[in-house]
Amino acid sequence: MFKLIGICLISIACMAQNDSMIVQKIYRTALNNGKSYENLRSLCKDIGNRLSGSSAAKMAVEWAKIKMENCGLDSVYLEKVMVPHWERGTTERAWLRTNTGNLIPLHILALGGSVSTNGTLDAKVIQFNRLNDLKKANPSDVEGKIVFINEPMNESYISTLNAYGEAYPVRGSGASEAGKKGAIAVIIRSLGTSISDFPHTGTMHYEDSIRKIPAAAVSTKDAEIISQFINKQAINIVMELNCKWFDPVVSYNVIGELKGSKYPEKIITVGGHLDSWDTGEGAHDDGAGCMHALEALRILKVIGYTPLHTLRVVFFMNEENGNMGGKTYAEIAKKNNETHIAAIESDLGGFTPRGFSYSCNKKNEKFSQLFLQTLKPYQLHIFEKGEIGVDTRPLSDFFPDIELYSFIPDSQRYFDIHHNPNDVFENINKRELELGCAAVGSLLYFIDKNK
Amino acid sequence: MFKLIGICLISIACMAQNDSMIVQKIYRTALNNGKSYENLRSLCKDIGNRLSGSSAAKMAVEWAKIKMENCGLDSVYLEKVMVPHWERGTTERAWLRTNTGNLIPLHILALGGSVSTNGTLDAKVIQFNRLNDLKKANPSDVEGKIVFINEPMNESYISTLNAYGEAYPVRGSGASEAGKKGAIAVIIRSLGTSISDFPHTGTMHYEDSIRKIPAAAVSTKDAEIISQFINKQAINIVMELNCKWFDPVVSYNVIGELKGSKYPEKIITVGGHLDSWDTGEGAHDDGAGCMHALEALRILKVIGYTPLHTLRVVFFMNEENGNMGGKTYAEIAKKNNETHIAAIESDLGGFTPRGFSYSCNKKNEKFSQLFLQTLKPYQLHIFEKGEIGVDTRPLSDFFPDIELYSFIPDSQRYFDIHHNPNDVFENINKRELELGCAAVGSLLYFIDKNK
Repeated sequence: MFKLIGICLISIACMAQNDSMIVQKIYRTALNNGKSYENLRSLCKDIGNRLSGSSAAKMAVEWAKIKMENCGLDSVYLEKVMVPHWERGTTERAWLRTNTGNLIPLHILALGGSVSTNGTLDAKVIQFNRLNDLKKANPSDVEGKIVFINEPMNESYISTLNAYGEAYPVRGSGASEAGKKGAIAVIIRSLGTSISDFPHTGTMHYEDSIRKIPAAAVSTKDAEIISQFINKQAINIVMELNCKWFDPVVSYNVIGELKGSKYPEKIITVGGHLDSWDTGEGAHDDGAGCMHALEALRILKVIGYTPLHTLRVVFFMNEENGNMGGKTYAEIAKKNNETHIAAIESDLGGFTPRGFSYSCNKKNEKFSQLFLQTLKPYQLHIFEKGEIGVDTRPLSDFFPDIELYSFIPDSQRYFDIHHNPNDVFENINKRELELGCAAVGSLLYFIDKNK
Repeated sequence: MFKLIGICLISIACMAQNDSMIVQKIYRTALNNGKSYENLRSLCKDIGNRLSGSSAAKMAVEWAKIKMENCGLDSVYLEKVMVPHWERGTTERAWLRTNTGNLIPLHILALGGSVSTNGTLDAKVIQFNRLNDLKKANPSDVEGKIVFINEPMNESYISTLNAYGEAYPVRGSGASEAGKKGAIAVIIRSLGTSISDFPHTGTMHYEDSIRKIPAAAVSTKDAEIISQFINKQAINIVMELNCKWFDPVVSYNVIGELKGSKYPEKIITVGGHLDSWDTGEGAHDDGAGCMHALEALRILKVIGYTPLHTLRVVFFMNEENGNMGGKTYAEIAKKNNETHIAAIESDLGGFTPRGFSYSCNKKNEKFSQLFLQTLKPYQLHIFEKGEIGVDTRPLSDFFPDIELYSFIPDSQRYFDIHHNPNDVFENINKRELELGCAAVGSLLYFIDKNK
């Protein structure tokens, strides 16, 4: 018995040592011979931003297919997705007008999905410090006015993602809540953690049967200015947006595979989203996530690792304003009777890795401990139940036993650049991006090896 | 007995709960009502860079004293330090000359402490890929030439500080090693992790009895260019530096105290260094460290915490090129028969906190676990034996039982900006800086409370 325990312990130690060696190879390849930084530069600079339905999104699909083919995967293909098509248009401007008639230009971006102003709006402004205050407002105070919601993100949270989650309804429902009270437009304080001139866009939705009113975000710096004025005098905002909805168009998820050697029918997905908002270059959101996923597969191939399961990299289309890529992927997987055992998503930026969150139905203690222990020298410390990405979540509707993981990078800088003109390649740090690729690659290896 | 254990457990639980509450207050104050960001802006923009002996360093001392006084500390004073005085001068330029006579301008910075070129040097170049290769070189191959050491930082390390430690001798001893072989000047590849146009300066030293030759760092991008040329043809470098040494001057450590309520004679120091290199604004190195230290004391005062020991914030002078501030501080402490029980230093930048390293003579397991457990919700995961800062290390010469701690922020971006023109306030993230203040403040509280 004693001998048996001894053999067992030696065997576990060998396994852990082997894991450590493979993880070291993954990190060394990412840091010394990585392709993610140059690939991301090309995506950002040769294609640029790429909102669903745009010609840039179409080019990005072609680009991504070629990049995957160049990685020597076993197969690369496109998966048809019908995506919504909204365009910002050519005119997007606003001014604060003081009671003495001075005009102060404001930095705004229409929220994604907003209707146009149909010409120029010029109306009195009513300010609410919280979305909840708007909900309680007397309609007679709001009717015919432009609602300004000046709700800041809560700085107290250690993870800015929690602050974003809390502030999200301001952007998502602000227009409908203001519309219910008879407002003619809504302007929200951008969902950003720093005081800057850059407005942040992002998706919003209209409730059925509520009148659709135009919605825009103003930069946090301008929000402070509007607030200063409005606390002392009545002001107007003059604004014009000519954004527009078009018919849905055909687009694609871009998919590449390394075939499993032992369980080819069991699929592990790793992905990010290829579409981006139509400002900046979608560098962190989510060019970085796509690079993490592709580089993870490329590295495993380069170091000569033979996957047991089929590893599938997916660049999802349309995460930002519809999630048709994620939904379609899950539906087709079900329709094709595929078996999906796990998925990793990276959609929180290309910053220094801190760990992963997961949402599993099974108990997973041993796996977690082995992973954390092996990755500790790589300064990966978080592995906990938590939020899951938008693109992979639909898989759990059809595959209830699937394990879903989400990459957690450091979050402190994300909401300086999220959905705004600052999300450009220049704000990507090469080492941070490469460490993210290695972290995602390591988890992919661990899942393949141990599940 | 059972009852006693019960009471004991309740007491430990209460203590931990109290710690958690105070740490939460520290973090909330740093994030919601912090002063560090605005103070650092002022130091960077109103004073700028501040090499020991410069008029800016003199102004920085005045500035720091006023800032400390405004924090309402019990006492603020200056401690006289004699510091070396080296100036870059007005001329600093270099070109690569090809064998067809084309001149390619190079981005260079003289290394701190270098002698001048005494006019223009124009000489053939010999390249070494490692400092060790230079050490083994035949002097006849080197005599009369300009030595170019093209040793890159090792990208494989997860912490860039390890790569810096390994590459440090290239900058520190490159000139003496080249001088030994008869070279007339040395140019090193900058100690930086990214490929950029910005050269990185930093201190170097000459060995006694070796002829002193001029030394400069070239940007990593230019190092690649030089290397490309030299691998195909003989090239010259033309260079001119008129940097100069002056007599030592009087300067100061700036010190502020909160008096201990129970052990006023026992001192806990927390500090960073006020001087910086004469390029950029010394924002991360080490304006951020000074802000961490001062804000830690300010926050403890603001939240109404009464320290048991005397807490002393020190802005050290001359860390960069002489460490006279750190040495003098330790010597005067000994001379005054002070009792120093611990010191925390922050000199690794103002990035997202990861934890602390320490060098203690005593076993410290319980303290470490309590700290890590309490700080885990704040994403602080590292608390381990390791490197200690330059300014606080001399204390251990006189106080062998002192516990020394060093703040560990995320290191990935540090060597993009370290000692180069990029180390400016614009590259400081407000939340990252504030989280650093809270982390340092929390450790300061923990030491005061539990030691």
